[in-house]
Amino acid sequence: MISFDSDYLEGCLPEILEAFQKTNFEQTPGYGKDIYCDEARDIIREACEAPEADVHFLVGGTQTNATVIASLLKPYQGVICADTGHINVHETGAVEHTGHKVLAIPNTDGKISAAQIREVLDAHYSDPCAEHTVQPAMVYISFPTELGTIYSKEEMRAISKVCRVAGIPLFVDGARLGYGLASPGCDLTLPDIASLADVFYIGGTKQGALFGECIVFRNSLLSKDFRYSIKQNGGMLAKGRLLGIQFAELFRDGLYFRAAKHAVELAQLLKSSLKEKGYSFLVDCPSNQQFPILKNDDVARLHELFGFEDWTKIDGEHTAVRFCTSWATTREAVDALLSEL
Amino acid sequence: MISFDSDYLEGCLPEILEAFQKTNFEQTPGYGKDIYCDEARDIIREACEAPEADVHFLVGGTQTNATVIASLLKPYQGVICADTGHINVHETGAVEHTGHKVLAIPNTDGKISAAQIREVLDAHYSDPCAEHTVQPAMVYISFPTELGTIYSKEEMRAISKVCRVAGIPLFVDGARLGYGLASPGCDLTLPDIASLADVFYIGGTKQGALFGECIVFRNSLLSKDFRYSIKQNGGMLAKGRLLGIQFAELFRDGLYFRAAKHAVELAQLLKSSLKEKGYSFLVDCPSNQQFPILKNDDVARLHELFGFEDWTKIDGEHTAVRFCTSWATTREAVDALLSEL
Amino acid sequence: MISFDSDYLEGCLPEILEAFQKTNFEQTPGYGKDIYCDEARDIIREACEAPEADVHFLVGGTQTNATVIASLLKPYQGVICADTGHINVHETGAVEHTGHKVLAIPNTDGKISAAQIREVLDAHYSDPCAEHTVQPAMVYISFPTELGTIYSKEEMRAISKVCRVAGIPLFVDGARLGYGLASPGCDLTLPDIASLADVFYIGGTKQGALFGECIVFRNSLLSKDFRYSIKQNGGMLAKGRLLGIQFAELFRDGLYFRAAKHAVELAQLLKSSLKEKGYSFLVDCPSNQQFPILKNDDVARLHELFGFEDWTKIDGEHTAVRFCTSWATTREAVDALLSEL
Amino acid sequence: MISFDSDYLEGCLPEILEAFQKTNFEQTPGYGKDIYCDEARDIIREACEAPEADVHFLVGGTQTNATVIASLLKPYQGVICADTGHINVHETGAVEHTGHKVLAIPNTDGKISAAQIREVLDAHYSDPCAEHTVQPAMVYISFPTELGTIYSKEEMRAISKVCRVAGIPLFVDGARLGYGLASPGCDLTLPDIASLADVFYIGGTKQGALFGECIVFRNSLLSKDFRYSIKQNGGMLAKGRLLGIQFAELFRDGLYFRAAKHAVELAQLLKSSLKEKGYSFLVDCPSNQQFPILKNDDVARLHELFGFEDWTKIDGEHTAVRFCTSWATTREAVDALLSEL
Repeated sequence: MISFDSDYLEGCLPEILEAFQKTNFEQTPGYGKDIYCDEARDIIREACEAPEADVHFLVGGTQTNATVIASLLKPYQGVICADTGHINVHETGAVEHTGHKVLAIPNTDGKISAAQIREVLDAHYSDPCAEHTVQPAMVYISFPTELGTIYSKEEMRAISKVCRVAGIPLFVDGARLGYGLASPGCDLTLPDIASLADVFYIGGTKQGALFGECIVFRNSLLSKDFRYSIKQNGGMLAKGRLLGIQFAELFRDGLYFRAAKHAVELAQLLKSSLKEKGYSFLVDCPSNQQFPILKNDDVARLHELFGFEDWTKIDGEHTAVRFCTSWATTREAVDALLSEL
Repeated sequence: MISFDSDYLEGCLPEILEAFQKTNFEQTPGYGKDIYCDEARDIIREACEAPEADVHFLVGGTQTNATVIASLLKPYQGVICADTGHINVHETGAVEHTGHKVLAIPNTDGKISAAQIREVLDAHYSDPCAEHTVQPAMVYISFPTELGTIYSKEEMRAISKVCRVAGIPLFVDGARLGYGLASPGCDLTLPDIASLADVFYIGGTKQGALFGECIVFRNSLLSKDFRYSIKQNGGMLAKGRLLGIQFAELFRDGLYFRAAKHAVELAQLLKSSLKEKGYSFLVDCPSNQQFPILKNDDVARLHELFGFEDWTKIDGEHTAVRFCTSWATTREAVDALLSEL
Repeated sequence: MISFDSDYLEGCLPEILEAFQKTNFEQTPGYGKDIYCDEARDIIREACEAPEADVHFLVGGTQTNATVIASLLKPYQGVICADTGHINVHETGAVEHTGHKVLAIPNTDGKISAAQIREVLDAHYSDPCAEHTVQPAMVYISFPTELGTIYSKEEMRAISKVCRVAGIPLFVDGARLGYGLASPGCDLTLPDIASLADVFYIGGTKQGALFGECIVFRNSLLSKDFRYSIKQNGGMLAKGRLLGIQFAELFRDGLYFRAAKHAVELAQLLKSSLKEKGYSFLVDCPSNQQFPILKNDDVARLHELFGFEDWTKIDGEHTAVRFCTSWATTREAVDALLSEL
Repeated sequence: MISFDSDYLEGCLPEILEAFQKTNFEQTPGYGKDIYCDEARDIIREACEAPEADVHFLVGGTQTNATVIASLLKPYQGVICADTGHINVHETGAVEHTGHKVLAIPNTDGKISAAQIREVLDAHYSDPCAEHTVQPAMVYISFPTELGTIYSKEEMRAISKVCRVAGIPLFVDGARLGYGLASPGCDLTLPDIASLADVFYIGGTKQGALFGECIVFRNSLLSKDFRYSIKQNGGMLAKGRLLGIQFAELFRDGLYFRAAKHAVELAQLLKSSLKEKGYSFLVDCPSNQQFPILKNDDVARLHELFGFEDWTKIDGEHTAVRFCTSWATTREAVDALLSEL
C-alpha cells in the first residue's frame, strides 16, 4: 500500500547511505567536533550567505525547539506562537517542560502577523501589573506552517522588524524549510531567512536525511554556551559526524533543494489535478502538503488503498485529509492516487 | 593516527548499514510503531528471558538517563548514585534539569554497595525533619561502571534486594552493557540483569550501533505512559525504525555479544601485556577500558602517536590514562600500541 | 481616598492580631507541627464535615496553586482550566514553571462546563497520536471565578462526576471561597465543596487573614508526602503557627462566614443601587466583586476620588471597571461611592 | 518546658505587632508597592551604605534562596556551596527543583575558601569537555554558617575577589545575618557585606520578625525583572506591606542589631560557662548557636527538661547537641539550663 501519511516514511536519500558507507571505519572525535561537521558548518554558512552564523546539529525537531527556546528565555518569559504551532500542540508540552509558557495567538491559515505580535507586546508592557503575567520574549513561527502555507517576504520582514524593535529573538521552525523555499510563489531565499530570523533550523528528517536538524544562529552572541544546552537537553549525538556527513551531503551541491523541488512539484500536480476534478481544499497550500476535502465515504474507501491522515472534520459528511509528498514520492504513486479520486 | 580515545570513534558494524540499505525505500509508520521495532522488542524480550518486559528505544545515553529517571521520580525525590556516576559528572546536570537532585555517595572503584544504599535510606527515614531533605527514591548504577569495573552477581543481588525492600526502583545504566557481560569473571547474564534491575538499558552507541539505547522495563507498571515522556524529552525519533533495525540486527543472532567479546579480549590482552611490562593500573578492569599509570614523559610522547584520554593525575610525575577498545579495534592497533609502551 | 481596588488592601480582622498578641511569647515547634495548626486542622475538618480530609496551610495563592498542581501531575500531564483562570493569566506562568501546560478552554462568564471538560478528554483519548500531546489530567476551577460568578451545585456536581469517571482530580481555587458561599443564590455549602472537589483551598488573604490559604485534600491518598512538596516549593512557613492561629480564629465560631457575608451584602447593595440608576454590568455577579460599565469620562473623574480597577474596554466610550468589597469595607464607603455615580 | 531548639520558636518583637496594630485599617496597594515597603527599602539602603542597591522582600528563606539562585543562573549553570550549605541539605532540593545543580565542596567548620572556589573554576575551564559538566556560575555562602561560624573580612574579601575576577555573583545567605554581625570578633559590618556580596539577604524570621527576608542586590543590573521571578516562584505576598512594616521597624533605629546582640551575648555566656565546666564543643562558635558535646545519658536526662536538637553523634557515648538563643531568650532560661549541666 502506498502511503502519503507523512514525509518521513522512508529511510534517506541514497547519497547519504553511500557517504556513511564510505566513512564508516574512519575514526573521528565525538560530539560534533569532527571534520565532517566542520565542513557542513562551512557549507551551510555559505548557503545562508551568513559568514558570522553559528551552526549546530541536533537529531530531531521537538528536541531542537525545546533546546533553542529554553536557551534564549529567562524563567519568567514565554514564546509567542500560532495556536496551531507545533510547539503548542504536538510536542507533549516539551516547551512547558522546560518551564516556559507558550503564548498561543489565533492563526490565519497557520500564520500569525506582525500586528498580532505587536499587540501582545503592547498589552504586556502597558499592563501596570505586567510582572503578574508571563513576559513575551520570543516569537516562534514555522516556515512552512503546520498547514503547509508560507510567509511572504513582506510578512516575514514585518515580523522580523517587530521583533528587532522589541529586542526579542525571532525563531523560525524550518522542519520543512526546503519544501517552503521550493514552493511556487515563494519570494524568500535561504539567505533571506538567515538574515530575517535570529535563529532558525533547516530540517533534515522530513527532507531526505535519516535524521537531523541544522540550527543556524545569526551570530554567536545568541548562542553563547549553546553546546552546554545541547548536552543538558540530551541532544548531543556521540557520533556527531553522522549529522555533519548528512548535511554536507545535502548542501554540498544542492541535493537538498533538488529533493525538495521534486516533492513540491508532485504536490502541486496533485493539487491542480484535484482542483480540476472539482475538489475544494481546507487551505490553499503551495508546498508539499495538500488538504483536500473529501466525502466521508470516499475517505473510508481510500483508506483501503492508500495511507494518509484524516486532518479535521468539515461537517457531518466531509473531512479534510492530508496528503504529503516527499523527496521519495514517485510520479507513479501520485498518478495512482489521482486515479482513485 | 590510531585512537583509543573512546568506543564511539567509528561508524557502525557493517551489518547495520547493510540493513539500512536493504530497507531504505520501504514505507513505515514513524515514532517506533513499525515492524522493525516490534521485531526488535520481541528479540530483546527473548534475550532477556523477560516476556513481560516493556522495551523502548532512544537515541543517546544522557537522554535515556534523564528520561527514565524523571519518569519514575516525584518532584521531591532524588536518585542515589556513585559520585563517579555518569549522571553526576558528565551530563551537564541533565537530571537536575528535570528537577531532581542526584544523591551522590562515595564510590569504590566506581561501585557502590547495598550497605551504603541502606544507610542513606535509614538516615532519611529516621530523620524527624525528613521532609526538609530530598527523598531517596531510586538507585542508579552503571554496569560496567565509569571505571570499567563490574558488579558481581552477589553485589547486584544485594543492591536489588535493598531496593525491593524499600520499594524503590533500581536503574542500571548499560551504555557498555555488552562489554561488562563479556568480561572475564563476570557471573551475570543479560537475564540476570533483567531480573535484578527494575529498568536498565542496553547501550548501542558504544557497542557497534550508529546510535541508540534500548530501555527495558521489568514490566509495564513502571513504564505507564512512557511514550509521553520520550516525546516530551525530545527522544522520540521520527524514523524510529532506524532503532528497531539496529537492535534487531545486533540481537537476532548474537552479533552484539560477539562484537563485545572481541573488544574485551583485546583490552585484556593489553592489560596482561602491560602488566608483564611492569605497569600498574588505576583500577583492575575486566572490561574494554584500561587505565594504566604512565610517566608523564611517556604520556606526552605517546600522544604524538595515538589518541587516548588523560584520566587523572597520580602524582607530579605520573598520570593514569585511558585506553578504550571497541568492536572496531584491530589486533594490529593493539600491537602497535604495545610496541610503543 | 477610599479604595475598592481589591479585597486585600487592609491588614486583618482584629481578632487575629489579638490572637497573635496573646500567644506571642509562647514557644512552639516550627513548620506547622504546633498545637494551633493541629487545632485549626480539626476545626476545618469539622466545618467541612470531612473527617478524613488532610489539611495543610500555605502563605499565598500562587504558591498554593503551583504546589498543589505540581504535586498531582506527572511531567507530561496538564491541567484543564478556563482561559480566564488565575493560573492561566495572572501567575507569571508559575504552573508552567513547574513543567506543566495549562490547557485553557473558553470560559462563559468565567466558568467552564462538564461538557467542555469531557470533550477535551475525549479528543485526547481518541487521538491515535495522543502521546504527542499533553495529557489532560486535572481540572482547575475557581469558586467564585475570577469574574465573581459562582457555579451552581448542579454544575459542580457534573464537573465532579466527569472528573471521577475519568479518574482525574478536581481542584477548586477558593481564594475567595467565603465570598462565594455567602452569595445570594449560592446552593453550595462548604461540605458540598469538600465532597465534590478532590482538593480545594479556603482563601485567607482576601477574606480577613493577614495571609494564608488552607488546603483541604479529600483524603491523604492524594496528599502523600505533600509536606515535601510544600518545603520544596518554598511554602513551608517557619513560624507555621501563624497560619494555625489565623485559621482557628476564622473558623472557631464562624468569623470567616460573618466577615464574608458583610462584604457580599455591601457588594449586592452596590449592584442593586447601580442597576436602579440604570447602569449595566459586564457580568451578573452575586459575590463581592462588581463590574459595572461606565462612560470613560466618568471613569476618569471617579479615579480622582476612589481607588478601583479598569477591567476591560467595552467600546470606544465605555469601560467595565471592578469594585471589590471586603470584610473591611464600610457602609459609609459604599454610600460615598454611590453618591458619585 | 524551655526550648533552645531554634531561633524561631516565639512570635516576634513586640514593636512589630504594635506596628501591625497601628496600621491595620489603612488601605495600601498590594505586592510591595506600598509606602511601608518604600520606606523600608530606603532605610535598608542607608544601613547598607548602598544607595544603588535594589531591595526586595520575601517571606521565607528556602523561597529566597531558590528564587535568587534561579534568577541569576542559566539552565546549564550551577552554584558552588559548602556541603553543609542549607541549600544542599535542608531545602528538599528546592534549587534542583528549579533545574540547577548544587556544586557541593567540602566545608571546614561550615566554611569554604577562595582557594577552593578558584580550584573548581580552574578545573571546569581547563576541561576540554567542559560542556559535558555543569558550569560553576555562582557562589553561595552562609553568614553565619549553618554551624554558627563566621567568615572574617579577609576571607570574605578573598572570596569576593575570586568571584569578581571570574565574573560570577557571590550570594550570601544571611538568614541569621544579625547574629553573625553581633558576634565577638566579627570584623565585618553590614556595609562590608553589602559591598563584598553581589546579592545577600537580611534574615527576619530568625531574628525577631514574624516572617520575612530582605534581599539586597548590589545594583539593579543583577535584579532586572526580579519581581517577575518573585511572582513566578510564589513569593510575592499580597499584603506586601507586612514585610515593609517589619523591616522598617527592625532597622529604623537599630532594633535588629540590639535584638541580635542580646541573643549572642547569652550564647557566649552559655559557651564560656560550659567551657569552665569542662565541656568541649563540636566547633568554636561566636554567634547564637552552641554545639557542646554531652554524654548520651546527660542528653537523655536533659531532654526531659529542655528542648534542643541532637546534632550529630560523636562516638558511642557522646553526642554534639545544639542550643540556640534568640532575641526572645531570657537570662533566666540560660541560667536554668546551666544549672542542669
